[in-house]
Amino acid sequence: MKELFGSEPKPGAMQEDFQDITAEHLFGDIWTRPGLELQERSMITVTALTVLGREQQLKTHLRGAANIGISRKKINEMMIHLAHYGGWPVAVNGLRIAGEVFDEHEKNKK
Amino acid sequence: MKELFGSEPKPGAMQEDFQDITAEHLFGDIWTRPGLELQERSMITVTALTVLGREQQLKTHLRGAANIGISRKKINEMMIHLAHYGGWPVAVNGLRIAGEVFDEHEKNKK
Amino acid sequence: MKELFGSEPKPGAMQEDFQDITAEHLFGDIWTRPGLELQERSMITVTALTVLGREQQLKTHLRGAANIGISRKKINEMMIHLAHYGGWPVAVNGLRIAGEVFDEHEKNKK
Amino acid sequence: MKELFGSEPKPGAMQEDFQDITAEHLFGDIWTRPGLELQERSMITVTALTVLGREQQLKTHLRGAANIGISRKKINEMMIHLAHYGGWPVAVNGLRIAGEVFDEHEKNKK
Amino acid sequence: MKELFGSEPKPGAMQEDFQDITAEHLFGDIWTRPGLELQERSMITVTALTVLGREQQLKTHLRGAANIGISRKKINEMMIHLAHYGGWPVAVNGLRIAGEVFDEHEKNKK
Amino acid sequence: MKELFGSEPKPGAMQEDFQDITAEHLFGDIWTRPGLELQERSMITVTALTVLGREQQLKTHLRGAANIGISRKKINEMMIHLAHYGGWPVAVNGLRIAGEVFDEHEKNKK
Repeated sequence: MKELFGSEPKPGAMQEDFQDITAEHLFGDIWTRPGLELQERSMITVTALTVLGREQQLKTHLRGAANIGISRKKINEMMIHLAHYGGWPVAVNGLRIAGEVFDEHEKNKK
Repeated sequence: MKELFGSEPKPGAMQEDFQDITAEHLFGDIWTRPGLELQERSMITVTALTVLGREQQLKTHLRGAANIGISRKKINEMMIHLAHYGGWPVAVNGLRIAGEVFDEHEKNKK
Repeated sequence: MKELFGSEPKPGAMQEDFQDITAEHLFGDIWTRPGLELQERSMITVTALTVLGREQQLKTHLRGAANIGISRKKINEMMIHLAHYGGWPVAVNGLRIAGEVFDEHEKNKK
Repeated sequence: MKELFGSEPKPGAMQEDFQDITAEHLFGDIWTRPGLELQERSMITVTALTVLGREQQLKTHLRGAANIGISRKKINEMMIHLAHYGGWPVAVNGLRIAGEVFDEHEKNKK
Repeated sequence: MKELFGSEPKPGAMQEDFQDITAEHLFGDIWTRPGLELQERSMITVTALTVLGREQQLKTHLRGAANIGISRKKINEMMIHLAHYGGWPVAVNGLRIAGEVFDEHEKNKK
Repeated sequence: MKELFGSEPKPGAMQEDFQDITAEHLFGDIWTRPGLELQERSMITVTALTVLGREQQLKTHLRGAANIGISRKKINEMMIHLAHYGGWPVAVNGLRIAGEVFDEHEKNKK
């Protein structure tokens, strides 16, 4: 979780029980399973959030993707591909959010 | 397209104009773009089809995934991960279809 | 309703209360409102059912579309267009179902 | 409607015809049917809006839920449950909106 | 799980790891949490599956609902209500599946 | 594209490759195909975006619809119809956005 998001979630950021379940089950038990590289888990998470139109979580996971070294170019390419499976609008939104996230990410690195 | 599906689509399998657009635009122009490996395109396509519940196309693209060497173990792992982003039912369906596709694929290889 | 589907729904085809609400409210009050031609209502209904992946109802309403004189060519064109807004799979499914419906419709006319 | 939302909708809040249909058909004819308690109708409405990601209407109906005495604890529990059927993101959004609505509701009661 | 479905799942019914996660996490940790009655969990699960169009899982959970004593009348009423939040087609499908499940359930009881 | 949106898209409004694909493939090759009138393409695009809840693109295409002479009355009627196929919330959102777009459109014409 820290590797992906650069920090632990702030206390109070989520309802307490759900934060525990998320930390223990989703990030503790699922994201750490073998069989997929962290970058692969990040790519399929970004894909799912893009085509389902979950924009807030997409932003969070695009930040994660940038943190673990997935390039802006690769994300853009994913969005162009996904336009054809989830429809143009999900790619328009995905590319806009990716643009914001990577602009911010590159600014922070300087 | 042949690399992925093992054969060219049969004439008459789709409405003619749409088959042309699919062959030229989607498989000709988009799937061949640089920036993503073929296996990566396959993985994000399978992901999109899984969470959107497009079962018939998921079956086709899981066959493609098997053809280009993505393992059953990796697909299973993707489905377990996606249960948490698209809901349990999309993973139940995805794992069932993947089971059928990989059973068939392994039988054909013998 | 009869104009669209060629017959009244059979008793017992739907749960009774819901059939009444559908007949009175949806077909009685909504489909008969001025402001849209019957063909326009049919086109937007087919569009909604296509992109939402409601295949059974899509089949019913494609039969309705054929009954009121919307051509196979127009429906095909709609599906090709919608591939770009709802994703390729909804058009693949829509064109397949439209093919079945119009084949049947043309056979019945002879 | 007044029981649920604490007031009648303001004139002009919605397009006029649709406001009439909503008041007469949806709230007049459907919400008042026997067979489900008002609290049960509220719970399934909140559930549908959560998993479909209709955030604006979810906010309105969470206010309704609070007005008719459904507890914050119960809503939180529903969201944790729904994470597993609609995916984590719908629960994250649902819990955030529920947090805002119940904070406001408790403040207004004082 | 046994209370709801009348039996434990057959070995091999699901991919093994996912079956373990489902049994331990979803049915073990989540469905047993306090804060919602079993009937309430069943009702919101049925609601989510209905509006998301997950027909296979809906059938399974409608059987569960019947097993724990939720009446056909109540399920029908839920579907009529949900037509207005998820669209007519999800209710048409939900009522058809509920009809099959409750016919079977009543036959088995005799 | 210019006929629909009143202007060419600003450079930099979208990721460059995707803007090219959109201009050449979607607007160049698809929207210009015979078989559907421009107004019909606009109507089915608005319908798809409404029921899929793609609000930002819906706003853009409602502006397009107004530009090519589709009336506010017709759009309102479409939304009332679509409430019954995509659920009430998509119509509430669609009517709100249409209200904003047509208010702006009528103000600009004076």
